[in-house]
Amino acid sequence: MPQECNKKGMLFVVSAPSGGGKGTILKRVFNDPETVHYSVSATTRAPRDEDKDGVTYHFMSREDFEQLIDKGEFLEYAEYCGNYYGTLKSEVTENIESGKDVLLEIETKGAFNIKKTMPEAVLIFIIPPSMKELRRRLTRRGTEDEETINKRMEQAANEIRLAEKYDYIIINGDLDEAVADLAAVCKAARIKRNAKNIIDEVLKNA
Amino acid sequence: MPQECNKKGMLFVVSAPSGGGKGTILKRVFNDPETVHYSVSATTRAPRDEDKDGVTYHFMSREDFEQLIDKGEFLEYAEYCGNYYGTLKSEVTENIESGKDVLLEIETKGAFNIKKTMPEAVLIFIIPPSMKELRRRLTRRGTEDEETINKRMEQAANEIRLAEKYDYIIINGDLDEAVADLAAVCKAARIKRNAKNIIDEVLKNA
Repeated sequence: MPQECNKKGMLFVVSAPSGGGKGTILKRVFNDPETVHYSVSATTRAPRDEDKDGVTYHFMSREDFEQLIDKGEFLEYAEYCGNYYGTLKSEVTENIESGKDVLLEIETKGAFNIKKTMPEAVLIFIIPPSMKELRRRLTRRGTEDEETINKRMEQAANEIRLAEKYDYIIINGDLDEAVADLAAVCKAARIKRNAKNIIDEVLKNA
Repeated sequence: MPQECNKKGMLFVVSAPSGGGKGTILKRVFNDPETVHYSVSATTRAPRDEDKDGVTYHFMSREDFEQLIDKGEFLEYAEYCGNYYGTLKSEVTENIESGKDVLLEIETKGAFNIKKTMPEAVLIFIIPPSMKELRRRLTRRGTEDEETINKRMEQAANEIRLAEKYDYIIINGDLDEAVADLAAVCKAARIKRNAKNIIDEVLKNA
């Protein structure tokens, strides 16, 4: 039996400061829609031009969001700048039960809330190689003025200070290295998760 | 900076039931004498024909062994069938300090003692895919009669029951898979160990 086989999927929670280039790494490691589901968050913020409902977010009214809170349909939710953001149970638990891994891209507060509810979740923080490099990447995008970039830098430093509570930290310096590191971490997490089952299987099969 | 760089080496403690085929996997993963040191245990048992002092074991008299115990030179030691077996600090700490990983192949009791003294040690158990397959491998060797094999099988089952206290369990079924699994686990353990340093480095470099 391949060691990584297990009926249930795994939950990987990934956080990274804005501009860290998380998306590229994730797409390289989690590239098979048959085996992984990218969880889509729900939000009450207004959709922008580039947004697609059900793809970037599940967009909904404040009223609908609060109804789902009351029904206990969220694994975690929080309010930022007057808008709700949350992770629906249906995005996570159903996929895991069906054997698919679930990838959750959320910020630190949400990640810690998930870990409380689902301690088996694997928390991964993708970190820029240095603050200098992060500033270079944010500046290169050319979409924000210096004040906004300074704000993002400050926010990034705060998030990075929380990274030590994560299970693993992946440096996003060299892309191939980061991809190999993330792949190893996910493989090792699966191996760790399956340990108890393996012992039972091996001893049973005498 | 490559994520796996760190001044100090890592300590990997590997256990496996006799006949599990541990050696082949280890040689494939830890194949660079520049970066890894295979720790040699000390023992008071008499050398056999195939033994080489300083390679299979450091052979010594009971008196010498007990002197080293008194001097606190052992990380762990135990007595089996009237003979001492132990891990010398000099085999482990000096190499780790110099930046080399150390590989320690010992049985479960020694492994747990090491973990108590050095909680940063990574405990890895290499498990046969089934008890049936273990019996097949032991029988195929043709070096032991049935009674001895039965005894080994019983001992193996006892060790396997303790495997859940290990950090990782690697199934030794398909060799290539086992090698890939062990490599991933070691890589992930290094990434985990380096996390704190990484955060400090990234924030410092503003």
